[in-house]
Amino acid sequence: MKKRVAILGCGGMGSGHAIAIASGTGIAIWGDVSTKDKARTAMLKGPIDTDISKKLELAGVYDIDPVRNAWAAEQGYFVYADYDAILKDPAVDIVLIATPNHLHKDQAIAAMRAGKHVLCEKPVTPNSAELEAIMAVASETGKIFYPRQNRRWDPDFRIVKKIYDEQLVGQVFTVESRIQGSRGIPGDWRGIKEFGGGMMLDWGVHLLDRILFMVPEKVKKVFCDLTYITNDECDDGFKMHMTFESGLTASVEVGTCHFINLPLWYVAGKEGTAVINNWQCEGKIVRLKSWEDKDALPILAGAGLTKTMAPRDEDSTKEYELPEVVFDNNELYSNLVDTIDGTAEQIVTSEQALRVLKLMEAAFESSEKGIVVNFE
Amino acid sequence: MKKRVAILGCGGMGSGHAIAIASGTGIAIWGDVSTKDKARTAMLKGPIDTDISKKLELAGVYDIDPVRNAWAAEQGYFVYADYDAILKDPAVDIVLIATPNHLHKDQAIAAMRAGKHVLCEKPVTPNSAELEAIMAVASETGKIFYPRQNRRWDPDFRIVKKIYDEQLVGQVFTVESRIQGSRGIPGDWRGIKEFGGGMMLDWGVHLLDRILFMVPEKVKKVFCDLTYITNDECDDGFKMHMTFESGLTASVEVGTCHFINLPLWYVAGKEGTAVINNWQCEGKIVRLKSWEDKDALPILAGAGLTKTMAPRDEDSTKEYELPEVVFDNNELYSNLVDTIDGTAEQIVTSEQALRVLKLMEAAFESSEKGIVVNFE
Repeated sequence: MKKRVAILGCGGMGSGHAIAIASGTGIAIWGDVSTKDKARTAMLKGPIDTDISKKLELAGVYDIDPVRNAWAAEQGYFVYADYDAILKDPAVDIVLIATPNHLHKDQAIAAMRAGKHVLCEKPVTPNSAELEAIMAVASETGKIFYPRQNRRWDPDFRIVKKIYDEQLVGQVFTVESRIQGSRGIPGDWRGIKEFGGGMMLDWGVHLLDRILFMVPEKVKKVFCDLTYITNDECDDGFKMHMTFESGLTASVEVGTCHFINLPLWYVAGKEGTAVINNWQCEGKIVRLKSWEDKDALPILAGAGLTKTMAPRDEDSTKEYELPEVVFDNNELYSNLVDTIDGTAEQIVTSEQALRVLKLMEAAFESSEKGIVVNFE
Repeated sequence: MKKRVAILGCGGMGSGHAIAIASGTGIAIWGDVSTKDKARTAMLKGPIDTDISKKLELAGVYDIDPVRNAWAAEQGYFVYADYDAILKDPAVDIVLIATPNHLHKDQAIAAMRAGKHVLCEKPVTPNSAELEAIMAVASETGKIFYPRQNRRWDPDFRIVKKIYDEQLVGQVFTVESRIQGSRGIPGDWRGIKEFGGGMMLDWGVHLLDRILFMVPEKVKKVFCDLTYITNDECDDGFKMHMTFESGLTASVEVGTCHFINLPLWYVAGKEGTAVINNWQCEGKIVRLKSWEDKDALPILAGAGLTKTMAPRDEDSTKEYELPEVVFDNNELYSNLVDTIDGTAEQIVTSEQALRVLKLMEAAFESSEKGIVVNFE
């Protein structure tokens, strides 16, 4: 059954949701993005996307900033007088929370107590204790609390997951996930600690959520080094190394003072390697044909000789294109509605979000104390 | 004064030295390398290279393998009957040790007690205790013990050192040094633990030596994760993270089951980033023009929006070629002779080699115990 959504907080993310839902496309196309981005956005529409105009409807928005409300009114969206007005509107089924992170807990609890389901931007809370408080109220009220950890639906991640699941490079022994920008932390509340700022709580959530979603194993050990290059108060990036139960390792890195980007993904398996260079999903897989010609003649490399690092040629390796992936880009919105209707299992659960938050807390502890943290 | 060198061990490295010294070029050109490699080798000759034919002369070689001695004889090199014959030859000034790592200590000590100076392949010993034993004898006999940690003279490293020294990307906050191959550990003694096998003791020595040579700071913390993908006995690679006193971090990685190579170097500074992709020193520097336009319009990236990671364009950044470097490719050989003559300071010292060995021991401990080791 179609649900009506009210959006609390109409900044960068909230306005995107408003456009996505009101347009019925599930895709956020701003009036002010470049033509190139509009074209890319149109391309994002996949062949099996759920028509969310049949599942969601925008009831309205509210922001504490009148400028944002004025923007919403210009788009033709209904603007609520305040959050209380949303909570009292019986026509609202779902509150979508897109406010600064430190506000999520009280707002989510208020919504559920008012009989609303909640779709909550990530990080759902700045720490695991606050999420546990939310989960207690969800359990008590029977309302759905849905963490919007949406980057499980990134095409680059879907490709990596397929490579991992189908062992397209043999058994994977290490996964590297990187995201590098060069603008520091955005100049808003994301740079302020008490508002839940910092890159670990921003991109870190996504990158860790994806790794945990992909690798069905316990994380045994966590090492993390947070960086404070462009900001003293909040981390503006980090390098993290996780060891899973099987010995598989994952390196996760976020940087915001990086003017050249390393590939988004590097996946090393026992029979090959895959790389995804960018969001356009350019990359390749190189697979070994045979381990037989293990040794080579030494080659000259810099000031010395090496046979260990002598490159292979086409005789012993073969290059492949990255696999194609087709999926429902609107599955998160769609699954939220189906979960409320009781017709589907919740894909992104509070328990999963809690595990990500606890993993981040282990990372914070590792970095602060300069130790390896035993996690699970 | 010209010195006469006898080479003990005429395998991969020993034969290279024999060719380099006997040819008077300092460059190892095999008869059996490809034409392409020969051309590259010729290119390696730099404009200010020392003419080592004026400094070194090959006295002869000895290997326990008759096949290697036969090869040496074919080249016209004198072949000693055994190591003892080298030690007893009064015309030999320097013994160059290029045997498996576990043999270096006793052979080096025997050489110095016989009145010879020693040029010793890396790792000079498999552990710091053995090097300390060598250093005691060097001190007692007054002979020079010279660790051949030659990759300080790699062009790629020289470029990185220039970028670091001259702050060509602003103050450097992280350096990443990687070397990736896809042949596992060479199928000889390098895969056997008691012979000092494993990649940490092979490429690890060079990569760590270069970082310590470049960054004149104490290493406070060491995290390392050794890999055993293609070999159970010895590590076939590792990922290592070091934190220096100033907060600068270095990530060092060696891999031998990697079919796609990440760049050799990635250097991130507060005003720019540098990358060196390969041994041909292809790469670039991208520098920020101004931090002013910190925020951008959000862009669509995968399943979501980001302004933090929106790429920069030419308005706020500028791309530069990597700096050129000119240096004496034969400086290690040359400095050995000058050190013996007392006309120069020793560039690669036993103390430096000892620090590298101790750093590797910290890395082994970190990986074995799954902890961060406080180093200096």
